[in-house]
Amino acid sequence: MQNFDLHNPTHIVFGARTVARLDELVPTKARVLILYGGDSARRTGTLAEVRAALGERDVYEFGGIEPNPSYETLMRAVELIRWEGMDFLLAVGGGSVIDGTKFVAAAVGYEGDPWEIMETHGATVRGALPFGSVLTLPATGSEMNSGSVVSKNATKAKLVFSSPHVFPRFSILDPTKTYSLPLSQVANGVVDAFTHVMEQYMTYPADGFVQDRFAEGLLQTLVEIGLQVLSEPDNYNARANLMWAATMGLNGLIAAGVPEDWSTHMIGHELTALHGIDHARTLAIVLPANMEVRREAKRGKLLQYAGRVWRLTEGSEEQRIDAAIARTRMFFESLGVPTRLREYGIGASQIGAVISQLEAHGMTALGERQDVTLAVSRRILEAGL
Amino acid sequence: MQNFDLHNPTHIVFGARTVARLDELVPTKARVLILYGGDSARRTGTLAEVRAALGERDVYEFGGIEPNPSYETLMRAVELIRWEGMDFLLAVGGGSVIDGTKFVAAAVGYEGDPWEIMETHGATVRGALPFGSVLTLPATGSEMNSGSVVSKNATKAKLVFSSPHVFPRFSILDPTKTYSLPLSQVANGVVDAFTHVMEQYMTYPADGFVQDRFAEGLLQTLVEIGLQVLSEPDNYNARANLMWAATMGLNGLIAAGVPEDWSTHMIGHELTALHGIDHARTLAIVLPANMEVRREAKRGKLLQYAGRVWRLTEGSEEQRIDAAIARTRMFFESLGVPTRLREYGIGASQIGAVISQLEAHGMTALGERQDVTLAVSRRILEAGL
Repeated sequence: MQNFDLHNPTHIVFGARTVARLDELVPTKARVLILYGGDSARRTGTLAEVRAALGERDVYEFGGIEPNPSYETLMRAVELIRWEGMDFLLAVGGGSVIDGTKFVAAAVGYEGDPWEIMETHGATVRGALPFGSVLTLPATGSEMNSGSVVSKNATKAKLVFSSPHVFPRFSILDPTKTYSLPLSQVANGVVDAFTHVMEQYMTYPADGFVQDRFAEGLLQTLVEIGLQVLSEPDNYNARANLMWAATMGLNGLIAAGVPEDWSTHMIGHELTALHGIDHARTLAIVLPANMEVRREAKRGKLLQYAGRVWRLTEGSEEQRIDAAIARTRMFFESLGVPTRLREYGIGASQIGAVISQLEAHGMTALGERQDVTLAVSRRILEAGL
Repeated sequence: MQNFDLHNPTHIVFGARTVARLDELVPTKARVLILYGGDSARRTGTLAEVRAALGERDVYEFGGIEPNPSYETLMRAVELIRWEGMDFLLAVGGGSVIDGTKFVAAAVGYEGDPWEIMETHGATVRGALPFGSVLTLPATGSEMNSGSVVSKNATKAKLVFSSPHVFPRFSILDPTKTYSLPLSQVANGVVDAFTHVMEQYMTYPADGFVQDRFAEGLLQTLVEIGLQVLSEPDNYNARANLMWAATMGLNGLIAAGVPEDWSTHMIGHELTALHGIDHARTLAIVLPANMEVRREAKRGKLLQYAGRVWRLTEGSEEQRIDAAIARTRMFFESLGVPTRLREYGIGASQIGAVISQLEAHGMTALGERQDVTLAVSRRILEAGL
């Protein structure tokens, strides 16, 4: 096991009818800015419920945070806060809204050009406005971590920052708030959470027995409920377990003490940037291909994954690895999420452009052993055709 | 899944050679009181290592905190702090030292008789001195939770308190610090951690899929490493996984959203009080007997436990349940921890006195359904003869 630090101060409030607890969680005298995404927060009544829970507090709203939140949009929120002096932020939405709120929280008091926050990946962040979240879309884990992804439209840059200053003070996770989500977003959430866990698990054996068992438990849970969350949208227990699995999948716990990969995400980011494919859908393409191409480096963990997650115990090692990768692919496909570039009309001739983008962004030595060179990334993309 | 709150602000620093990090974790100007137990902290050199890491800070020591820490001893530390004005506490030891430090931290500024803290189970605690810990004995999870057990010699009362004010600010978990422990204490730690997990898992199915998988993962890990931590005392990975499993076994995570039992602990406490049997050793007697007596109420979970933890898939339901309970008993015995009262010279005629103590302490409706009456506790003790 590797040495590690683990420190996660986010207060989770989980369950049905918990939005009303905002009244105890947000300081009484706070001037609150609610940040949200599209129209659904209003249409579903969540925004009204949030406002009602906040009672007599001064409450302002900032809507329109996009999927893949943009620096340009978020800086408008920063200007608004600097002008109006709100002192508490409340993100109402999914990972994009929470990620965006983290950037806003760090940028408001930042001395210098706030884009530096992204360029330094958070190293220059010295503080942030306090904020909480009401999660409506389980997927990214942003509700219980200190990371954020922000894009700059002007330069097409998509960067990650993290800082201990941007853990949410609290996050309210009410599974009933996910009942009205479009099923494609729910399916994306399952794939996103599954892949987060795999990035922290599918590396090489490092004697993190607890971490491996926890990761496998999350994967098994996602497999167990994956179809049910789509076929029974108001099945509380299925949605609750998806929500909790997604949060636990990327809150630092299962990564503590073990190696991490993240090459699937890095390659996937370029597919989103160049071809506009939803984040989770890029992962469904890249992850199985990545396991195929790197099967030797990942042999030990692939066999463990085959045995423990998919209960594959028959046949040779090669057969079990093949079967585990095939099961992964079939699982994603069963959720209606394609796993081939050709499903998006992308062919071999377009791989070069993706590789050029990886090179331009310095993504030339990815993975748990930094051995995913551009040549390896090319083979992964070819395996995903 | 049940609604829950989860909020654990303890900063974990895990790994070999991490004691030196005290210098960054303890405030520079702090006046520090180190609290510890017996002589081993000094003999092993840990105390000197801690003092060296604290550098130029004002450092005082308070030794002699017993297993099952006593109010009387702890109040001497409280008086010392009130006199000398230390403002940061550092527990160096296992669960007893950390539990004791929690009480001291809450008692120093307490208005009124500090024993009220125990009598109100922490409800009247309004604040506490900040403290950290250096863990030397993996077992209780006290290093990452807000609970504490303190005994009053004068009245033989053993009470539990918890308060969000007594989470450790940080805990340093260095597995190499456990190499020199007596093997009986290590075996006790395995049994203690295993039983903690079982108290939060072996109830009734509540659709906490993630929680169940995590609990099962901890149990599997403890089974996997149980013998190795005894036969190879300086096997780093075995000790590291024991340490992490024990911490994760009682830090609030696996209990969040599911029912809890704790009757094994309550019955065991009386065996410690009356017969002086080590805490963990009482659990090894009571847990298997508890499962036998309550097999109908726990049927669903017993079958799940049999299948997932012990891989028992052959035979009838009754056979699988019998086998799972037998495996649990054999596991404890394999660690050198007896599972029968007769091993301590306790016979049927002494059960009445234990029941009287349970009654005197109000323990008349224990368990996840409050249906462990005194008659049921009697049957459990009889099954443990």
